[in-house]
Amino acid sequence: MSQRIAIIDLGSNTTRLVVYDYEPGYRFHLMDEVREVVRLREGMGNSLALRAAAIERAQQAMRMFASFCRSQGIDEVIMTATSAVRDARNGDSFLARVRAETGWEPRLLSGEEEGYYGALGALNGVGLGEGFVIDLGGGSAQIIEVRAGLPARVVSLPLGALRLSDLFLGYDRAKPAAVESLSQFLAQQLEGVDWFRARPGDRLVALGGTVRNLARIDQATFGFPLELVNGYELAGTNLHEMAGRFWRISQKERLKITGLDSDRADIIQSGALAFAALLEHGGFESLTICQQGLREGLFYQHFLAGQPQPIFDDLRQFSPLNLARKFDFDNVHSRHVTALSLQLFDQLQAAHRLDASYRPLLWAAGMLHDIGVRVDYYSHHTHSAYIIRNSGLPGYTPREVGMIALLAQYHRKGNPKAGELGLLFDEEDQRALPMLAGMLRLAEFLERGRSQVVRAVRCHLDLANGWLQIEALEAGDARMELWEASRNLDVLQRALNLHVELVGGVWLGAGG
Amino acid sequence: MSQRIAIIDLGSNTTRLVVYDYEPGYRFHLMDEVREVVRLREGMGNSLALRAAAIERAQQAMRMFASFCRSQGIDEVIMTATSAVRDARNGDSFLARVRAETGWEPRLLSGEEEGYYGALGALNGVGLGEGFVIDLGGGSAQIIEVRAGLPARVVSLPLGALRLSDLFLGYDRAKPAAVESLSQFLAQQLEGVDWFRARPGDRLVALGGTVRNLARIDQATFGFPLELVNGYELAGTNLHEMAGRFWRISQKERLKITGLDSDRADIIQSGALAFAALLEHGGFESLTICQQGLREGLFYQHFLAGQPQPIFDDLRQFSPLNLARKFDFDNVHSRHVTALSLQLFDQLQAAHRLDASYRPLLWAAGMLHDIGVRVDYYSHHTHSAYIIRNSGLPGYTPREVGMIALLAQYHRKGNPKAGELGLLFDEEDQRALPMLAGMLRLAEFLERGRSQVVRAVRCHLDLANGWLQIEALEAGDARMELWEASRNLDVLQRALNLHVELVGGVWLGAGG
Repeated sequence: MSQRIAIIDLGSNTTRLVVYDYEPGYRFHLMDEVREVVRLREGMGNSLALRAAAIERAQQAMRMFASFCRSQGIDEVIMTATSAVRDARNGDSFLARVRAETGWEPRLLSGEEEGYYGALGALNGVGLGEGFVIDLGGGSAQIIEVRAGLPARVVSLPLGALRLSDLFLGYDRAKPAAVESLSQFLAQQLEGVDWFRARPGDRLVALGGTVRNLARIDQATFGFPLELVNGYELAGTNLHEMAGRFWRISQKERLKITGLDSDRADIIQSGALAFAALLEHGGFESLTICQQGLREGLFYQHFLAGQPQPIFDDLRQFSPLNLARKFDFDNVHSRHVTALSLQLFDQLQAAHRLDASYRPLLWAAGMLHDIGVRVDYYSHHTHSAYIIRNSGLPGYTPREVGMIALLAQYHRKGNPKAGELGLLFDEEDQRALPMLAGMLRLAEFLERGRSQVVRAVRCHLDLANGWLQIEALEAGDARMELWEASRNLDVLQRALNLHVELVGGVWLGAGG
Repeated sequence: MSQRIAIIDLGSNTTRLVVYDYEPGYRFHLMDEVREVVRLREGMGNSLALRAAAIERAQQAMRMFASFCRSQGIDEVIMTATSAVRDARNGDSFLARVRAETGWEPRLLSGEEEGYYGALGALNGVGLGEGFVIDLGGGSAQIIEVRAGLPARVVSLPLGALRLSDLFLGYDRAKPAAVESLSQFLAQQLEGVDWFRARPGDRLVALGGTVRNLARIDQATFGFPLELVNGYELAGTNLHEMAGRFWRISQKERLKITGLDSDRADIIQSGALAFAALLEHGGFESLTICQQGLREGLFYQHFLAGQPQPIFDDLRQFSPLNLARKFDFDNVHSRHVTALSLQLFDQLQAAHRLDASYRPLLWAAGMLHDIGVRVDYYSHHTHSAYIIRNSGLPGYTPREVGMIALLAQYHRKGNPKAGELGLLFDEEDQRALPMLAGMLRLAEFLERGRSQVVRAVRCHLDLANGWLQIEALEAGDARMELWEASRNLDVLQRALNLHVELVGGVWLGAGG
């Protein structure tokens, strides 16, 4: 049964309420989000007292969130506060007031807890086996070491973008001396964190609004063809370039930067410098953006409560299934088309010579090829591709999402072309697209009657003679499927550059 | 509870199986469609016997459909046959064999019944008060008179596109003498139908694959910016031009026509000539395309079984609700945003001076503004617009669908621009867009907390001084809503060219 939960995260710069609709462990989606820029830390400086105006803004937002939850009938509310409240001398009385006004039990997270939940967001958002997660917010930055896919050491440092603007750079053009002071501060803060050093094979994943915005600015410079930032790899050189440029220009000039969120124009320069220092200290040459963070981590702890760790066993399997379930398409037909596609992929290895890393993309495309039907049946292939492109798939890179979307796009008709998504692809991807699309299409037409009458395929390759026979193993009358499939062999045939013949065979059971 | 029904329509040219998912009278959507070109009438000529090859193709398709229904667990199957079987001497034994093989009870529709169900599809697809519906298929064409929104007289004539190609023009380039014979045949068939004449205010609605394809060809000539054909108005002059051109060129040349379905290249010339003759005979200068026909009519008879007539009382109300329900968004928030928008529209009449015909578009946009959330919460405004554009809204013209999509697109951010959809708009539409978007946006932010705390608005206009006060009538603490709404007044303010001030007021109940 569908349930709803609200999660509220009161940060130093913004506060957000998010509402998830979910079935525990099975599927979820974000239903609603309300974001308020409360700037709770504003003016706090070194006084370490939340200021009256900031308190009033935050209380106002909490009152609205409480009324929101009441009117939506959401009983389950998780409310957390982080560094601004943690650091403030009057944080306790502030939270007591929130409790009194709303009836919630606010949780004041320690820096370690904040880091842990951020890491959960990252591990369930892009996946990470070995490396580090950095969650840089308005007030603090958490560095979390990840080993064997689990969060390990955590440190929380006072390196949030709003705080650094507040203490060092100000909100407009900065003076070189201020930048120098900031650099010294960053170096000094990182000095003790000697375990934050890249080992061979380590990846760095970065969370938070600042780094997402840096990624969008970077994407805009070269016309990145997707609206996705999750899984995007931001090159260190580009990050260093932005860090060296933004503090030198005024807030007004920053507002002209394509991709910049207008309400970050006054703190992005501090965030960019902080990330540059972090990257350098850790010895990384790029970082991977994760769209998810603390709030999502809190959600996953709830959503995956039955597991030993609230981390998906297989994120790349879960996220396409989650999307399929959101559109009611995790069904027998989708699963059978997927199975036939993968049989073709496996049996035709000698003909296509594609890397095994393409196999999961074909799997995901098979599971998702029909989800666009809810938009409209006609052209549902296009709608499936649109939904895949725009909802993204945690655990997959933008390039992979693009490939999966294209496979769905071409699963029933059309000549597979990468189009604008070609910008994400290398030559091998371009070669893979029509091959994978050809396999998916053949599988789709072998499942034309949605009856699984073609139980399996058996491929007989004769590469020397440029010849391939595909046997469709039938458990019943599959004449229509064979006829339809034979009319839809052309994409695969051209892509493999083989003469392909399709014949009927008899299904003798799984052992046959 | 969700139910499923399959409807099978065995026509002269194609046969289709469609599957609907529905809750009786409440919501439905097309889940699946399997189309086979069986050309049942092929070779029948004047012999009036279904030929062996045609019978085999049709039986094969029916077997596949039966296996489809079994594997999907669909018990409710409506199977109908039309003109080819009706005209054939061996139609009975053909249907008996279908019955024996599938267990269905095939219904052989009379021309009148075929006309009636086609008209139901039209009345529930584009709406029609007074005029005529023409349903031109492969074998026959039905003309149905519609008076006071109900089907009245019906005639079925042997004017299907496949039949006319078969009997007169052949499938390739035609001889002028053949066209002359066809024209005489058309004139002679229509001679007796003296009641098919346009009265003032009458509209002509046309159904079937042939006319849909003619519309797509027409749309392609000027870069029509939507993928929709339902509700499209095809000008008589353009239809006559196509009718005069297509028979003169070969099938191969026809295949190069942008927008043409390749499997209609051999019969479109006959269909175009038939429509030209029908238009001329009826005295119409244009026709409105309807995407729906016989199959949908059969479905509506089932879906609306509880009503005196299986026709929506208010199609323009039902179709946005149906779309909202498909995405689980017929909810309190959507309805309240809609209500507030319409209050603004009504009370600001003197300021915006928009025609009342814009009001239902604002209503529909209000009901649909959030449906994109299921694709992804972020950018859901863009996803809502995408879904509206691509699923279409029966009862609305493409221009109206475009306007509703744009209003959804701009309901939370951005400066309203028609973009490519401007091609559908006149100057008044261009003026209306930012006004309506401004109202919807203000309503959305007055409902920011989804709590209906702003129960209503009251507008105080002082046009002479270019001044407008909007009172937000609160039933509780609406500070956040007022604050958010005040930051989102700019679109409305610019569009109305008034100084707008927003103030809080007290809700004194519906009588206040």
